[in-house]
Amino acid sequence: MGKVDRAELVPDYARRAFTQRRSGRPGPVLPIIPRDLGEYDDDEHPYAPVKGWRSGPDPDDVRAAVKALLGAKDPLLYAGEGVLYADATSELVRFAELAQVPVMTTLKAKGAFPESHPLSLGVRGSLAEHFLRKCDVLFSIGSSLFPNRFSHAVPGAHEKTIVQCTVDTLDINRSYETRHAVIGDAKLTLQALIGELSPRAGGARKNPELVEVIRAGKQRFMAQFRPLMESNDTPINPYRVLGDLMKVLDPRSSFVTADSGNTRDQTSTVYEAQIPRGYLGWGNVSTLGFSLAGAVAAKLAYPERQCVHVTGDAGVCYMMGNFEAVARYKIGITTLHINNGGYSGYGPGFWGAGHDPYTWKVSDHASACMAAMARAVGFYGEDVTQPAEVIPALRRAFDENARGRPAFLEFICSHHPVHGGWVRPAPSGH
Amino acid sequence: MGKVDRAELVPDYARRAFTQRRSGRPGPVLPIIPRDLGEYDDDEHPYAPVKGWRSGPDPDDVRAAVKALLGAKDPLLYAGEGVLYADATSELVRFAELAQVPVMTTLKAKGAFPESHPLSLGVRGSLAEHFLRKCDVLFSIGSSLFPNRFSHAVPGAHEKTIVQCTVDTLDINRSYETRHAVIGDAKLTLQALIGELSPRAGGARKNPELVEVIRAGKQRFMAQFRPLMESNDTPINPYRVLGDLMKVLDPRSSFVTADSGNTRDQTSTVYEAQIPRGYLGWGNVSTLGFSLAGAVAAKLAYPERQCVHVTGDAGVCYMMGNFEAVARYKIGITTLHINNGGYSGYGPGFWGAGHDPYTWKVSDHASACMAAMARAVGFYGEDVTQPAEVIPALRRAFDENARGRPAFLEFICSHHPVHGGWVRPAPSGH
Amino acid sequence: MGKVDRAELVPDYARRAFTQRRSGRPGPVLPIIPRDLGEYDDDEHPYAPVKGWRSGPDPDDVRAAVKALLGAKDPLLYAGEGVLYADATSELVRFAELAQVPVMTTLKAKGAFPESHPLSLGVRGSLAEHFLRKCDVLFSIGSSLFPNRFSHAVPGAHEKTIVQCTVDTLDINRSYETRHAVIGDAKLTLQALIGELSPRAGGARKNPELVEVIRAGKQRFMAQFRPLMESNDTPINPYRVLGDLMKVLDPRSSFVTADSGNTRDQTSTVYEAQIPRGYLGWGNVSTLGFSLAGAVAAKLAYPERQCVHVTGDAGVCYMMGNFEAVARYKIGITTLHINNGGYSGYGPGFWGAGHDPYTWKVSDHASACMAAMARAVGFYGEDVTQPAEVIPALRRAFDENARGRPAFLEFICSHHPVHGGWVRPAPSGH
Amino acid sequence: MGKVDRAELVPDYARRAFTQRRSGRPGPVLPIIPRDLGEYDDDEHPYAPVKGWRSGPDPDDVRAAVKALLGAKDPLLYAGEGVLYADATSELVRFAELAQVPVMTTLKAKGAFPESHPLSLGVRGSLAEHFLRKCDVLFSIGSSLFPNRFSHAVPGAHEKTIVQCTVDTLDINRSYETRHAVIGDAKLTLQALIGELSPRAGGARKNPELVEVIRAGKQRFMAQFRPLMESNDTPINPYRVLGDLMKVLDPRSSFVTADSGNTRDQTSTVYEAQIPRGYLGWGNVSTLGFSLAGAVAAKLAYPERQCVHVTGDAGVCYMMGNFEAVARYKIGITTLHINNGGYSGYGPGFWGAGHDPYTWKVSDHASACMAAMARAVGFYGEDVTQPAEVIPALRRAFDENARGRPAFLEFICSHHPVHGGWVRPAPSGH
Repeated sequence: MGKVDRAELVPDYARRAFTQRRSGRPGPVLPIIPRDLGEYDDDEHPYAPVKGWRSGPDPDDVRAAVKALLGAKDPLLYAGEGVLYADATSELVRFAELAQVPVMTTLKAKGAFPESHPLSLGVRGSLAEHFLRKCDVLFSIGSSLFPNRFSHAVPGAHEKTIVQCTVDTLDINRSYETRHAVIGDAKLTLQALIGELSPRAGGARKNPELVEVIRAGKQRFMAQFRPLMESNDTPINPYRVLGDLMKVLDPRSSFVTADSGNTRDQTSTVYEAQIPRGYLGWGNVSTLGFSLAGAVAAKLAYPERQCVHVTGDAGVCYMMGNFEAVARYKIGITTLHINNGGYSGYGPGFWGAGHDPYTWKVSDHASACMAAMARAVGFYGEDVTQPAEVIPALRRAFDENARGRPAFLEFICSHHPVHGGWVRPAPSGH
Repeated sequence: MGKVDRAELVPDYARRAFTQRRSGRPGPVLPIIPRDLGEYDDDEHPYAPVKGWRSGPDPDDVRAAVKALLGAKDPLLYAGEGVLYADATSELVRFAELAQVPVMTTLKAKGAFPESHPLSLGVRGSLAEHFLRKCDVLFSIGSSLFPNRFSHAVPGAHEKTIVQCTVDTLDINRSYETRHAVIGDAKLTLQALIGELSPRAGGARKNPELVEVIRAGKQRFMAQFRPLMESNDTPINPYRVLGDLMKVLDPRSSFVTADSGNTRDQTSTVYEAQIPRGYLGWGNVSTLGFSLAGAVAAKLAYPERQCVHVTGDAGVCYMMGNFEAVARYKIGITTLHINNGGYSGYGPGFWGAGHDPYTWKVSDHASACMAAMARAVGFYGEDVTQPAEVIPALRRAFDENARGRPAFLEFICSHHPVHGGWVRPAPSGH
Repeated sequence: MGKVDRAELVPDYARRAFTQRRSGRPGPVLPIIPRDLGEYDDDEHPYAPVKGWRSGPDPDDVRAAVKALLGAKDPLLYAGEGVLYADATSELVRFAELAQVPVMTTLKAKGAFPESHPLSLGVRGSLAEHFLRKCDVLFSIGSSLFPNRFSHAVPGAHEKTIVQCTVDTLDINRSYETRHAVIGDAKLTLQALIGELSPRAGGARKNPELVEVIRAGKQRFMAQFRPLMESNDTPINPYRVLGDLMKVLDPRSSFVTADSGNTRDQTSTVYEAQIPRGYLGWGNVSTLGFSLAGAVAAKLAYPERQCVHVTGDAGVCYMMGNFEAVARYKIGITTLHINNGGYSGYGPGFWGAGHDPYTWKVSDHASACMAAMARAVGFYGEDVTQPAEVIPALRRAFDENARGRPAFLEFICSHHPVHGGWVRPAPSGH
Repeated sequence: MGKVDRAELVPDYARRAFTQRRSGRPGPVLPIIPRDLGEYDDDEHPYAPVKGWRSGPDPDDVRAAVKALLGAKDPLLYAGEGVLYADATSELVRFAELAQVPVMTTLKAKGAFPESHPLSLGVRGSLAEHFLRKCDVLFSIGSSLFPNRFSHAVPGAHEKTIVQCTVDTLDINRSYETRHAVIGDAKLTLQALIGELSPRAGGARKNPELVEVIRAGKQRFMAQFRPLMESNDTPINPYRVLGDLMKVLDPRSSFVTADSGNTRDQTSTVYEAQIPRGYLGWGNVSTLGFSLAGAVAAKLAYPERQCVHVTGDAGVCYMMGNFEAVARYKIGITTLHINNGGYSGYGPGFWGAGHDPYTWKVSDHASACMAAMARAVGFYGEDVTQPAEVIPALRRAFDENARGRPAFLEFICSHHPVHGGWVRPAPSGH
């Protein structure tokens, strides 16, 4: 945004900054305010908060999109984080129920549609993949559809009809051919789609067969994780930590995020996000250690929520310089450290043939104890080596959090990189 | 847009390019296609033309904007080139007539509102300035409102209510505080504004007092130019050339543009543009010589129009390398060269104190005849030294144009830099 | 270089600018001086001209380079334009004669070594190619050795010993493996090389066999161009124009340059440059029309020289906007226009298979006469259609030049794109 | 440097990279090697180490520089880090002794001239300032002379004769008017200067008066720090830690560096560096926490040296994520943590009027113990609260280091921001 070079221009710059923050596709703004800028007179140069402005869809485009949806044999709703930015999650539920269409979300939008909803396909793994491959109309809302390392590609895209509702025309025809586009804020767009669909849908008809297919598919997908989530192995299976976490947390008033790497992949596979911003999904090029900042920010924004983040042996080293400040400010978040003794890769093949799949190994727990480091600067801290101790330790940590003290739980775990997959483009495709 | 690195990606890139060209705020796209890219199979990688997509306004914002307009004591419509890009000129006329509000346009939008309309204030000079200073609500459509060398600043902006309808949120709160914004395509926006205003306006009420104020103000403003446009002086007064041009051209089927410098300022002050794209206004940082390209492009787009461009002693040297090609392709445009023997400044003060206001002087006509240069490569060419010869020479040129031969008329003129002014910000303002 | 923001800083910026202009590897400097910068007091902020500073070679590197040269079976001196910038042409002659080594120059350095010297290989074509392929030690002075479209690649570079004397370390090991480098100003470097070589070379021994090989090779190479340079064909063969030009010009007091395209290739192949800056070679990414600026600059720098530039049908259109000023300022240069009626490619294959080798064709001479255009703005101008008229026309043009009037000669020529080649890297090479 | 796109180009890129690393003004090189680059054949594409090449001074410039030095009344040698990069520290001593001129160094060059030498003025504070203000000829070697926050400006520069010996012409006439420049590698330059000066200096004449002035000035300057270095106060005065450190370390086989902020300023003021690279001075825009990396790198480069770095409450948080790896790799360095309970400013005035000079305060030692954090991941760690315990604790830490274990000593200190100053430009100067 540039440098503010006279003090009395601060309100102008603030106005401009918040306009961009609250309008269109919001993005970060970087005002540069020199230390010695001086002062200005508030009365002469007042600042009034900026509301932000949205644009909505072209009614013709809305009609075309709904027509394509109604003409589909196997439609799929594909929701991205634009739905969260537009505060349009309840409209998304209403539209999906009206249309009786299954809904998957991107990693970043995890929680934008309740994952406990009968129409939810979740984010990743076999259930999402099945519907993604099968659909003839992919109806996207609030997503760029740009495929990266931590999102699905659209398989057989040229044989599907892609409808893309987005606030940013740069995403249209960018990754795939877009047959129909609807440009505008996700909330205004979903309201217009509901308005167009309502009279045609004839009330909330139900589709019990579809719901049953989803339910059975979800059960099949989760069947590979259930035993891990209940495993009594030592070292502790990391899924046991997540399974127990879900037993202790209230999903309607919690926030969970994870660091990049295996903790992101495991958490985003099995944690069921039921409320908007109940999970922070992030991906691709991410700073290790960012999950601490995510949890701290969530706690400040939602003080009544239990805020938890999961990190690994690499991530914890990136964040520990900040622990003293978290304790000093009495921000009651809980850090779960999955200590499996190494900076993990993603299993065989990840680093290429001939390479160890794991970049073993860091100092063993006897000579380096991260819980002790956290305690040294004011965290409540525990090492947990037994599966049966996971839930009691979580309870103690959350109790400390309630008193304004952050907690650090170090779980001595095994490697277990299995998680839900992403659909990749066909190797010969374009 | 980047480099196309495999031939079969050409349709993808074309799709992306035309999406950007035809959606949102359209802009230029630069695909880089290497010479040795190879070929691809049309059947396997087909291209279907892209329609382009628009977004429209938030209905709440439309209501707020119309409410501000109706509450105004002295409203002003300020139209920018977004109206032309959105093909919304007839909607603009309808909205202005419904609201009975005076309309001025930016230089780039000259012609987006018929300058012969009783509500038109034109682009520059005392009439536009009067209304711009007086208005309490400035209602802008399709303009960035960014003030530059060849547009008005908004005087006393902090005491006015600015309503800005634009497709680009970057322009909101950029130059002035925007009280109300309406984000969207100008055509969808004007349709929504008309829909909101119609029931309230109660049909096309007329405002004869306003129309009379405009009529009288326009007459006063033009009074300083009329004598020049009819002057019999030699060297010919440049306004005489423009006045005679307007006598010969049919304003409903013509295109006029001018080079940067005095020819732009004189032409944009007195030429009355009555149809969309009947005048190409351009400004600020402009390549001298561009008017030839403007006229050639207009002739190719509107073959039935008489296309004329006006240039001066500097501009002509920037364009003459292209004359041979214009003649070779039989593009029947007419170049008017205002030869006043020098590369003119803008009169006293322009180059600063102590400098000659004109950067006299180029070779005199006896030793350098541009009409002869143009004839040498296939143009019809004439020198015109007498006022009485202006109209006959224009007629002969247009006759040649009709036969597919470009024409070059060199008028031996005086310096006469007087033209309509721009409102500048107050020196102490912010 | 940045923007001068206070008037009294002008001497500081000037000092910095001329330091960079006159030191190390000189380059252009762009000071931005705002129009309204104000004034400053010369006495308080005086400016004294900056001498510029050079660095010279490491004596150890000089010894290693001379040792490599003396150990060579077939050494080759490869001189670049750094020799011209360092004003080291007489040192180059001295060094080459001491070492009795053949010398070729890059296109940009054409004339840095007298092309009439018995050790000169010229710039391009079979003679230069023979020695370039054969050499075992390539001893480069003042060249980046970076191969582009208008320079030689070094064939079999990994089997040669490359010695690179340059002022810029960025060029070392850039395009080829550099076995020995000598970093420093070309003049200081050549002086040190001469100082190192002199006692070893034992005075100016001669190598009559080498001189004879060069003489015979040059004769063979020129044999294909001699008949063209004496051709009586009509349309005139372009080499006839160049051959006749060389008969009229005094090579010791002339300057020649050519536009990019065929005129550059033909001129740089057959014109024999005998003095430093007697020819301006330029290449690769070049603005068409630049040859006019080159000739004008040369005339201002060397008023006593006859300055001539050669252009074609495309180039002439890029420069004609400047003709009026050249005539107005009475700059007596001569423009030779090789009119072959089209924007030429480089013969079959240039535009790829299936494309016409020439991008025929512009307006024919009857409807577009460039000599008439030039006359219209004050040049002396002639069309020349007969071979026998080339020399008389050149003499008339030069006579006009001597009176301060520029001249434009338009020769009605045939296409004839044959010229000396460049060595290209082997297709399988690295 | 760009991306290596074929495996067999690795030797070419390596050659280029090391050429730039070892030639001219060396700088960092960033080769980008994709993970899946593949392999190449070492025999076909061999790599031979690149020697790097230097350039030396123009002999005329050397003569002019020495003449200016000999003509000076109060000459001053001003040495920058170029002397270290060129490995020219013994030449610098020889030249200074020949010329009998006092020597100061920049912060980055601290140690390039032995600070225990009778001609040494050190880096900062009153002694350096005295000579800097007084000198009529400032003879600079290996410095850009660019003034920043952590170096001196040259006061009254326009009344001094500045001689600048540098490898980079960009620095000439950049910050001050350069009367004489000598361009080239510092070692070749100093050798040439010695060669030019030797016969004129007539052997190593001594200048006992000068030496006495320096000795007395140094004593006066250090008089303000001596009591602090011997203080028995608790909390411990930070200078006591530094004073005791100097009692324990052998200055001929040690390496010291400090983090940015007060630890840099205090350490660089009183620590006497006696060998090249015995101290790493860094400044201006520096990453907090970098001192750990400096100490680790020094230990790897000089395993036999005792390597120590000093950090504060802010710096320690930036580096602790790396402690586990330092312990794991058994790198025996010692971290000195000056814990004064806050992120310190630089005393009153630093943050502006009305701001607390210190950004008090972090968690107190009772609730956050950094030594415990370090111990938790394998460091030897101690808290030190008593002045008498500083030396014993240092001895224990160094003993642990000798066994390959890093050590962390946390000193509970007072704030004490006083340190040697920098000369600033005159406020009205240019």
